[in-house]
Amino acid sequence: MLAARLHEYTEDMSEALSIDNVERPEVDASNGVVVEVEGAGWCQTDNHIIEGMWTDYVEQTLPMTLGHENAGTVVEVGEEVSTVDVGDRVICHPVMTCGTCRSCRLGNDMYCDDVSFPGLTTDGGFAEYLKTNERAVIELPGEVDPADIAPHADAGITAYHAVKKAVDELNPGDTAVVIGVGGLGHIGLQCLDAMSAADIVALDVKEAARELASELGAAHAIDPASEDAAAEIESLTGGTGAQQILDFVGADQTTGLGPDIAAAGADHHVVGYGGHVHEPSQTLVDGEFAYRGTLVGRYTELQELVALVDRGDVELRTSRYDLEDINTVAERLEHGEIEGRAVIVP
Amino acid sequence: MLAARLHEYTEDMSEALSIDNVERPEVDASNGVVVEVEGAGWCQTDNHIIEGMWTDYVEQTLPMTLGHENAGTVVEVGEEVSTVDVGDRVICHPVMTCGTCRSCRLGNDMYCDDVSFPGLTTDGGFAEYLKTNERAVIELPGEVDPADIAPHADAGITAYHAVKKAVDELNPGDTAVVIGVGGLGHIGLQCLDAMSAADIVALDVKEAARELASELGAAHAIDPASEDAAAEIESLTGGTGAQQILDFVGADQTTGLGPDIAAAGADHHVVGYGGHVHEPSQTLVDGEFAYRGTLVGRYTELQELVALVDRGDVELRTSRYDLEDINTVAERLEHGEIEGRAVIVP
Amino acid sequence: MLAARLHEYTEDMSEALSIDNVERPEVDASNGVVVEVEGAGWCQTDNHIIEGMWTDYVEQTLPMTLGHENAGTVVEVGEEVSTVDVGDRVICHPVMTCGTCRSCRLGNDMYCDDVSFPGLTTDGGFAEYLKTNERAVIELPGEVDPADIAPHADAGITAYHAVKKAVDELNPGDTAVVIGVGGLGHIGLQCLDAMSAADIVALDVKEAARELASELGAAHAIDPASEDAAAEIESLTGGTGAQQILDFVGADQTTGLGPDIAAAGADHHVVGYGGHVHEPSQTLVDGEFAYRGTLVGRYTELQELVALVDRGDVELRTSRYDLEDINTVAERLEHGEIEGRAVIVP
Amino acid sequence: MLAARLHEYTEDMSEALSIDNVERPEVDASNGVVVEVEGAGWCQTDNHIIEGMWTDYVEQTLPMTLGHENAGTVVEVGEEVSTVDVGDRVICHPVMTCGTCRSCRLGNDMYCDDVSFPGLTTDGGFAEYLKTNERAVIELPGEVDPADIAPHADAGITAYHAVKKAVDELNPGDTAVVIGVGGLGHIGLQCLDAMSAADIVALDVKEAARELASELGAAHAIDPASEDAAAEIESLTGGTGAQQILDFVGADQTTGLGPDIAAAGADHHVVGYGGHVHEPSQTLVDGEFAYRGTLVGRYTELQELVALVDRGDVELRTSRYDLEDINTVAERLEHGEIEGRAVIVP
Repeated sequence: MLAARLHEYTEDMSEALSIDNVERPEVDASNGVVVEVEGAGWCQTDNHIIEGMWTDYVEQTLPMTLGHENAGTVVEVGEEVSTVDVGDRVICHPVMTCGTCRSCRLGNDMYCDDVSFPGLTTDGGFAEYLKTNERAVIELPGEVDPADIAPHADAGITAYHAVKKAVDELNPGDTAVVIGVGGLGHIGLQCLDAMSAADIVALDVKEAARELASELGAAHAIDPASEDAAAEIESLTGGTGAQQILDFVGADQTTGLGPDIAAAGADHHVVGYGGHVHEPSQTLVDGEFAYRGTLVGRYTELQELVALVDRGDVELRTSRYDLEDINTVAERLEHGEIEGRAVIVP
Repeated sequence: MLAARLHEYTEDMSEALSIDNVERPEVDASNGVVVEVEGAGWCQTDNHIIEGMWTDYVEQTLPMTLGHENAGTVVEVGEEVSTVDVGDRVICHPVMTCGTCRSCRLGNDMYCDDVSFPGLTTDGGFAEYLKTNERAVIELPGEVDPADIAPHADAGITAYHAVKKAVDELNPGDTAVVIGVGGLGHIGLQCLDAMSAADIVALDVKEAARELASELGAAHAIDPASEDAAAEIESLTGGTGAQQILDFVGADQTTGLGPDIAAAGADHHVVGYGGHVHEPSQTLVDGEFAYRGTLVGRYTELQELVALVDRGDVELRTSRYDLEDINTVAERLEHGEIEGRAVIVP
Repeated sequence: MLAARLHEYTEDMSEALSIDNVERPEVDASNGVVVEVEGAGWCQTDNHIIEGMWTDYVEQTLPMTLGHENAGTVVEVGEEVSTVDVGDRVICHPVMTCGTCRSCRLGNDMYCDDVSFPGLTTDGGFAEYLKTNERAVIELPGEVDPADIAPHADAGITAYHAVKKAVDELNPGDTAVVIGVGGLGHIGLQCLDAMSAADIVALDVKEAARELASELGAAHAIDPASEDAAAEIESLTGGTGAQQILDFVGADQTTGLGPDIAAAGADHHVVGYGGHVHEPSQTLVDGEFAYRGTLVGRYTELQELVALVDRGDVELRTSRYDLEDINTVAERLEHGEIEGRAVIVP
Repeated sequence: MLAARLHEYTEDMSEALSIDNVERPEVDASNGVVVEVEGAGWCQTDNHIIEGMWTDYVEQTLPMTLGHENAGTVVEVGEEVSTVDVGDRVICHPVMTCGTCRSCRLGNDMYCDDVSFPGLTTDGGFAEYLKTNERAVIELPGEVDPADIAPHADAGITAYHAVKKAVDELNPGDTAVVIGVGGLGHIGLQCLDAMSAADIVALDVKEAARELASELGAAHAIDPASEDAAAEIESLTGGTGAQQILDFVGADQTTGLGPDIAAAGADHHVVGYGGHVHEPSQTLVDGEFAYRGTLVGRYTELQELVALVDRGDVELRTSRYDLEDINTVAERLEHGEIEGRAVIVP
């Protein structure tokens, strides 16, 4: 089968991946599942992997097929699989977990002691077929097209997971700031709107993104390049500041903005990455302020997100590309030229 | 009356405060309370105030009497005060709050819109008398000596507040790391032990502090200067890391250690300050790791801490000094030469 | 001034209250507030008070002016009042609290040690003027008419308080059942819809109420008199049952229905009262099922509800009556003949 | 092998179970585990099963081997079992769960869609061997004797689960009431003491039980038969009442006592069963009072309890009996003649 593989780390996105002919994966465990991929979202993390930015955090053996936002149809199942069957249309949670370690038992499957992450630590879904297991697949409701929902497998669940933590702390009348209304941010904003009655303020330097934010439920959209975001938010909140901040960018400027726009006791959820958090300890103390990293999301959260999609509460902006155009996608995302989310259709 | 006052910011602790003769404060509101000070703890924050480190965060008018860890006997009350009376022995919560803003109503009195903080923004308790109000005083149980409990007014409640947040996330079998077993840390460690069944690992470069930690309930005490703390903690936790970290130091090295000793999803509570937090956003994301600042504590938390003291669960190590020796205390603390907590007895 | 007063407990609503000429109340504390009443909602609890159903729970001295859902304009303030002024339009939280007891400090002002409850334990708002205090008033946003919002002072906040507890436990894809879509229920249903992404199933024996439920956001509306509610809910939830149940009726039949429609671990929030809870302990154990009583709501929750109203998320169905028609209202409510909420306009 | 089996429901405990010779169970799934039983606790629920009290709640096919508090040594494992091995000493969580349904994924394994409960719905551990699976076994720390810890498999975890919910709501200075200091209660009391700094008040009609309570950490022990428990608790709490109530009896009298001894907002955890809850809805509303059923506990909670035991925080009072004396145990428990917990050693 065809698969888009990374052979060596590079900064040059124009020749990041090569389309190889490899063997189709097969089920090799009692709970194994093979999926024919019908949609695989391209993610900023794919660019980061290509640049070698994950080598300090996980083990990777090249060449490796990328692609961790996968959906498609089940074509083979292991002998003890009982929750899905051949022919079922599924979305794939990004990690395969053991189900027996304490983290899995607690529902924190992202912290599994024996996790593998297709597209990051093993072969992923920019290919005709993907090997995963029963612990990672969720059957799709009625009429959802796998290519339309694929990006929820990582972008969606990551946004949802961060938003769910924020929603726990938000009351009607509070303000939530969404920084970055791109692939993740435009999903997070809709989840916030569906699950809370907080007022949403969106920050993005791109006009189209701000317009999208307003359309999707933001009460206000601010351009931090041309406006004084801190002054605006102070004014919008009557001097209180924002109770929760969702930072889908994670750059030096965006993490640095946090304490200036935060209400006392606020959380700044770091979802995007690339930059640093850098503040005096005293700033965190004085405002009882927190930087909270957020890592993908739980299997059960992907179930909840699929329920939101099924209710019509979250709409995904996608554009489709053939497998052979994959490096074009890599380049365009690098240059900020993709609206919503690109989906590879192998 | 005599009062130890700051006239100008300085790095020289030997002449930090001067003992002035000033007028005794009087009640000027219906809920006003004047306390004869019988004990006022000296805090690392006093050194920070003297150095001018709080000028960016709050408004200060010099000269100002320092001292924000106060206990004593009520000598005058306003006409609508109903919960304490002249002659009652009380500990003073460090801030005077309005009781009507939304933060006060929510129980987050530390975030009061109209807060004043004796010893930080108005005259404090290194003096014979202190003006405070009914919202800030808690009657002491039976036989507690005000000079013995005074440091709980800030050191104690700050440690307690951080620990309470940590305890919410700790299960039996989990590990909590206490960094710094000084004035705050030795209180925090005892609160942890009383309120959870987590295993406590203490880190301190001073041998006496490590011995104190073991005596007060730590399962292990590590010297991060001579031992590889991260390797030790990895081994003690079977590779998992610590679920909660309480950083009573807040220096660059201690905040930097956090991600190396943390379990997935851990919180690093920043209580002490002086240094910075500085990490790649990706580190926070990869470990779902959080830096959470912590600011003093609630009035109701001081009630809870007094209950812990009354149960015999928290013991305070103090040494007493006369008001005239106050600059000696300032110098000794600067050089790390004070065990437990120094209390000024005016 | 004119006031509708209860002189003796009775079952006969046609002569429940008499319109008396009494003295206008005046401010008698530094935080006192007198409000000219522009709207006062009639509540099922008023019928219960008239029947003497509260004599076992609180102290009442007759004659007493009823009315605990009040809104109007401030006409007099005590000398230390700083958050409202004469001329401000306000809604009145139903209880006057002390602000200094531990419950008030924790934000649980409903549990205040020194509470008084106008219309239940002291004179209420079925009158031209009402005496309350600064701790109980919330300024209304821009254009809200006091008579339109008055019922939120008790019906609204009670529904909101119960819903907020339920929302904490609800995820997208879960089901919440609302039993009784009357004065409280139609508010609760809208709060649920605004603050969660759960699917709402409404139960009411009245067709108009079921239609209102569907209009306001219920996914399904069931008539428990003619349909098998348990079977319907089992089918709608794929056999799981409802995760949260909000019982705005509290009769024997509705509390008895709970265990039959509940998912494992569900809560049955008892908001309405009149009947009993009666089940074998084993039923609670087997389903890890809870009956949770719910008592009015916090001052800060009324702030949050006013924010919901201001956002347009909660619409109140009211009808207005003159003070002299008050016993007609009492009778009609007794016979279930009032849609939405009756508001007395003195 | 020998097994103590129930052939028909009966009130006569003297001939409740018969010792049969049956086939030894064998592994029949990839995650199957067979344990040689070294200790199996006898539980009040065994008496209830024998009386037929569970037939309305679960499906049972007689004859069935009882025994749901099991510990011993692994003698056989399925081919995909990776967390335990032959020769390991283990305690058995009472239920076998699927690991893939949403409840299992959330960590609520007690609510598993495809649960089986040895000793309640399939053959249990009053036998030489027990068939269970990898999802239900926890390896014992170093020197713990399986017969000493076996009752924690159900009595322990049930007490722990209830206590953990209560601890979330308890602050230092609060009061927790433990009703019934028998098999479950004496464990629950120790867990409370280890995990909170609340003051514990124990209620039991038996003097030995009250003495045990005081020994294990209760601040006060009351005989509700000869003392006015409500008046005592009112006095001990300064009129506030108890914040949390743990009812290990669940009889009409004990559930009825709840509202009389409860602080506002209190929870009455119904752990024991046999009687009813029966109160006016108004009582629940007026005190914001809750009856919360509690069902066994999670696998991860049994891990936590084993950690408590390993720390020395929870001590179990047990007495050992041979398999052939099993009906004597059944009778003695029925007559309240067993102190602590009886363990069958097959």
